Amino acid sequence: MKVSEIASLLRVSAAGDLDREIHGVAALETAGPADVAFVESAKSLDQANDSRAGCLLVPEGAILPGKTTVAVPNPKLALIRIAAALNPPAAHPPGIHPSAVVAPDAELASDCSVGANAVIESGASIGAGTRISPGVYVGQGVQIGANCTLHPNVTVYSGAQIGDRVTLHSGVVVGSDGFGYVFAEGRHVKFPQLGKIIIEDDVEIGSNTTLDRGSLGTTVIGEGTKIDNLVQIAHNVRIGRHCIIVSQTGISGGAEVGDYVVMAGQVGVGERAHIQDRVIVGGQAGVLPGKIVRSGSVVWGTPCRPMSEFKKTTARLARLDALAEKVQILGAQMAKLSSG
Amino acid sequence: MKVSEIASLLRVSAAGDLDREIHGVAALETAGPADVAFVESAKSLDQANDSRAGCLLVPEGAILPGKTTVAVPNPKLALIRIAAALNPPAAHPPGIHPSAVVAPDAELASDCSVGANAVIESGASIGAGTRISPGVYVGQGVQIGANCTLHPNVTVYSGAQIGDRVTLHSGVVVGSDGFGYVFAEGRHVKFPQLGKIIIEDDVEIGSNTTLDRGSLGTTVIGEGTKIDNLVQIAHNVRIGRHCIIVSQTGISGGAEVGDYVVMAGQVGVGERAHIQDRVIVGGQAGVLPGKIVRSGSVVWGTPCRPMSEFKKTTARLARLDALAEKVQILGAQMAKLSSG
Amino acid sequence: MKVSEIASLLRVSAAGDLDREIHGVAALETAGPADVAFVESAKSLDQANDSRAGCLLVPEGAILPGKTTVAVPNPKLALIRIAAALNPPAAHPPGIHPSAVVAPDAELASDCSVGANAVIESGASIGAGTRISPGVYVGQGVQIGANCTLHPNVTVYSGAQIGDRVTLHSGVVVGSDGFGYVFAEGRHVKFPQLGKIIIEDDVEIGSNTTLDRGSLGTTVIGEGTKIDNLVQIAHNVRIGRHCIIVSQTGISGGAEVGDYVVMAGQVGVGERAHIQDRVIVGGQAGVLPGKIVRSGSVVWGTPCRPMSEFKKTTARLARLDALAEKVQILGAQMAKLSSG
Repeated sequence: MKVSEIASLLRVSAAGDLDREIHGVAALETAGPADVAFVESAKSLDQANDSRAGCLLVPEGAILPGKTTVAVPNPKLALIRIAAALNPPAAHPPGIHPSAVVAPDAELASDCSVGANAVIESGASIGAGTRISPGVYVGQGVQIGANCTLHPNVTVYSGAQIGDRVTLHSGVVVGSDGFGYVFAEGRHVKFPQLGKIIIEDDVEIGSNTTLDRGSLGTTVIGEGTKIDNLVQIAHNVRIGRHCIIVSQTGISGGAEVGDYVVMAGQVGVGERAHIQDRVIVGGQAGVLPGKIVRSGSVVWGTPCRPMSEFKKTTARLARLDALAEKVQILGAQMAKLSSG
Repeated sequence: MKVSEIASLLRVSAAGDLDREIHGVAALETAGPADVAFVESAKSLDQANDSRAGCLLVPEGAILPGKTTVAVPNPKLALIRIAAALNPPAAHPPGIHPSAVVAPDAELASDCSVGANAVIESGASIGAGTRISPGVYVGQGVQIGANCTLHPNVTVYSGAQIGDRVTLHSGVVVGSDGFGYVFAEGRHVKFPQLGKIIIEDDVEIGSNTTLDRGSLGTTVIGEGTKIDNLVQIAHNVRIGRHCIIVSQTGISGGAEVGDYVVMAGQVGVGERAHIQDRVIVGGQAGVLPGKIVRSGSVVWGTPCRPMSEFKKTTARLARLDALAEKVQILGAQMAKLSSG
Repeated sequence: MKVSEIASLLRVSAAGDLDREIHGVAALETAGPADVAFVESAKSLDQANDSRAGCLLVPEGAILPGKTTVAVPNPKLALIRIAAALNPPAAHPPGIHPSAVVAPDAELASDCSVGANAVIESGASIGAGTRISPGVYVGQGVQIGANCTLHPNVTVYSGAQIGDRVTLHSGVVVGSDGFGYVFAEGRHVKFPQLGKIIIEDDVEIGSNTTLDRGSLGTTVIGEGTKIDNLVQIAHNVRIGRHCIIVSQTGISGGAEVGDYVVMAGQVGVGERAHIQDRVIVGGQAGVLPGKIVRSGSVVWGTPCRPMSEFKKTTARLARLDALAEKVQILGAQMAKLSSG
């Protein structure tokens, strides 16, 4: 791909050596003469000057004399587009590997692929262009839409519903039983876990993440939401659209999460908590059961409170010793005054 | 199932339309005329009045005029029983799928089932009525009791012992090597991980939870204990009977947990800590290595302390600014007095 | 193995019954007359006196009259050596199980083994003596060195590079996509995850741990590093040599970890943080994004600070009530003085 072709794909113009051949995308530090890299903002211009990249995607208005540049409104987004053009996804020829075990009544679109040793149970349906990798298990009656990718060793329990363009990374478990018991006569008796789980379109779920079905209700992961590795989604949780949930976060039974919510890593959300739209939750924060976190707020700590408050408290804590000393001195002065 | 049959199954009497046909269980909010729902306590009676449920399991003494009700001592427990009657577990015809790989000397009870692409190694034994799902790996010499369910893609390392009526959800790993090394000559040298792991009767373990074997000793999960998804149980841990361990909790090597202990989500327990009977540990709490948490106590925070103390400290923290200001003012007053 | 043979293997001398036959290693408390156990330090000598072990590995200079002992500089390390001699690893006859699916152009060393239902894709290479267990998936072009063990149901994504003597426990996922998106036009657009992952020699990785490939760069796990169960390693993370990373720790994208670092359980490390050589991070600590933790320091808490400071703050917190009360009294005294 020539630099001129990159520019025309992005519908902008380029400066420098327009005929240079670009073969890949790379980071500024490691890019070579056949790579395109991106300059996120004006702050990185110095670093960009030192880069050996053959072509730089730069923010509009940036000036890099002697470099071959393509100026765009959002360089990082532009890199995504160029990467897609340079690295088309590997073709997965449709078809069912002879070692796969597919129930006779499963409905497979003619152009989906089923890998070696995958198992597809009775009544399941798999949409067009969907790729079921080796070792994947698809339970009874599971519905999977079109153009999904299930990476190796994913497990989907019976009855789960998965939309279009969903990616499940290896080891993901969809639709396992929720964790609900009633204590009676000295034992924990299992509460029925008969509900559904629905994963909407364009969701991506990271490796070894677990998502339980509803107990009586339904677990829902909204359209466009992205979930990282090793996250736990409990029964009856409802997550809205276009959320970002970072690794090792756990969301307890019946919690509700709005749209465009961001949770950093290792967050814990208690049962039936309600996190409204566009909330940001800081890493390792804990949201108490039943707590309502208002739309647009930024919270941190356990129990979570507004970020600014948490930071102030943390700063105060660092000076707690000084405060205690001051009180000590005041006490001594007071004793002197009183006795004086 | 008629309402009258529900009542007779529960050995109580019903009020309202005794002939109504009930086909399923549901939550109060989503139940329809063919569903039975439960009313947990008197607090939910208003909600129950608005429910469209065809039949309501209510606490004894509750009055819901115009509704079809069955009054029982424990409505949630009653729902479990009715759900079991309405949703008998899917039949899993005994037999070994032709694609399963079973060692010739493995001992399989005649009415157990082994799914597609499962692997059962030499010397393993599988009890009556036990279901080994597709993709499960059962190592050498593993003993699994009767009426267990191993969901797809579970791994059981060699030598593990599993009791009766145990449920292992997908991705569970039983009996992997503990994490123990000796530092010598600039490297970590692996300590032998030769011990056992025993999972007693009626244990349920959630998806992608990991349980290590003992190093020289034995890891034990006591009878009736329920473990959620993504929990880590290290080598030589001993967990008592009928505990509840919520998602993403981690229990370090050699820790001991009594009976009827409850740990909320994301709890961390240090090496060789001892958590006695009936302790409750709050979410994200950290129990220090070697710490003894006394029987019946309720603890929270890192390092964990009694819940009441943790809450008081948290409240104080929120007022720390005010305290600092007060000291500031006192200081000024003192300076004035002293100089005056 | 006779006690005299144990002593000669360790190149030291023994005291007591040199002809006693020893068949296994055990812990002090559970060892019997045919077991060897170790006494870690002089503190455990009383316990050792009560042990039924047939042979005790003791620190040099320890005196245990009436016991059969072998005195060594490092008894725990000596036990590792004896355990290795007494429990040679089970032989895994080389060969490819007929149910395994191996691409014709995969390069398999003649003496490696591939278990039942394992899948090895095109262009992969597997070194001599390496054991690929049942249900393992090895993607396109993956390179695995010699004498590795991949336990059942491990997944290695295409392109990953794994050194010699690497152990991956069950459910480990190597090389999945990193978690990187650009927000544009109301949606999260996936950033290219095209980078590499390199796992160097002598690394051991615990069950269900996940390791993402680099996005544009490379994820590296340095030689000799040991990682416990359920750990998350994000894209572009670089971990040095001989580190210890305990269970459920999560390390965010682009973070750098030096050599000989120890992280206790459930630690969270923010994006692009830099943890220098020989740092120790306490359990559940949180390292903020971009934070530099200086070489050799010991830190704890969220946000993490020096251990001594964290402990002091924790102690102060416990006395916060008393401090508030003191200020209250001072205030009253001041009011009295001022009005008096």
